[in-house]
Amino acid sequence: MDFQLPRALEILERTPAAFRALLGGLPEAWTAPNEGPDTFSAFDNLGHLIHGERTDWIPRARIILAQGQDRTFERYDRFAQVRESQGKTAAQLLDELARLRAENVATLRGWQLTERELALEGLHPELGPVTLRQLLATWVAHDLGHLAQTSRVLAKQYRDAVGPWRAYLPVLDR
Amino acid sequence: MDFQLPRALEILERTPAAFRALLGGLPEAWTAPNEGPDTFSAFDNLGHLIHGERTDWIPRARIILAQGQDRTFERYDRFAQVRESQGKTAAQLLDELARLRAENVATLRGWQLTERELALEGLHPELGPVTLRQLLATWVAHDLGHLAQTSRVLAKQYRDAVGPWRAYLPVLDR
Repeated sequence: MDFQLPRALEILERTPAAFRALLGGLPEAWTAPNEGPDTFSAFDNLGHLIHGERTDWIPRARIILAQGQDRTFERYDRFAQVRESQGKTAAQLLDELARLRAENVATLRGWQLTERELALEGLHPELGPVTLRQLLATWVAHDLGHLAQTSRVLAKQYRDAVGPWRAYLPVLDR
Repeated sequence: MDFQLPRALEILERTPAAFRALLGGLPEAWTAPNEGPDTFSAFDNLGHLIHGERTDWIPRARIILAQGQDRTFERYDRFAQVRESQGKTAAQLLDELARLRAENVATLRGWQLTERELALEGLHPELGPVTLRQLLATWVAHDLGHLAQTSRVLAKQYRDAVGPWRAYLPVLDR
């Protein structure tokens, strides 16, 4: 599937609601456990997405669109949410994600990007030159990856409880 | 995490809304593609969950609770939805899943299962003896597995569009 901005927006707009439908009102017994050291709980996934709204997608798009002399992106801190989510509830994070995403989607729509702009490049500190089109496609795939990850970490809480069915549920051992 | 019926219900009740938040109103460009031969599209995932509501979870629980002479479950047809979803829209499937799930959750609540009943066994045609508790835990994990699968198949539509970021998005190659 080729990248088309209207298609990408369809996912970006839905992500906060999908997380809310899945996690809204769930107790910590579901949202707090992770998959082992240096992995994300459902709660961590929310904080990680929020950090991306603040520091990654739109800020990087601005660097590309500005086409200044230094187009290198800031490095992304994959564990920033440990600090930033401290003392917050999942309900607060769901609200924060919805608000930030709505703002960022409005910004993105407001740009009315042309094909020429989508082809502009920035410099990823590790991956090298990347286009705005690739950045926006990655935003979408990153959302969906974290929704998959969140579903998986919840499922794993029942890895033992399912008994012999574990053999039929690859999500429990991924 | 030990199986507890109230915790399980928290997920079972949320699943249709999570799928609706993610897929409701999405065009076929997102919902129709799958991951290759004999794999499920987002649309197929919905049909598969509906088939389970009709033929798997509650019917198998009834077999266990009845404790009749033959406690062997019917085999589950993993591709029944190809036939059953024909001619339907994703919107129709989302409605059907929500309706059937609400009925099944009401049935499950109505049983007011005791610890003794949760320990009763049925016979899986391939896995052998399984308890009602394991069946209900599997229902939950199966929901979450298919939400993860649905997120993944959507993400994979951008496998090429993300360019070099593919290296950072394991969901695209799972």
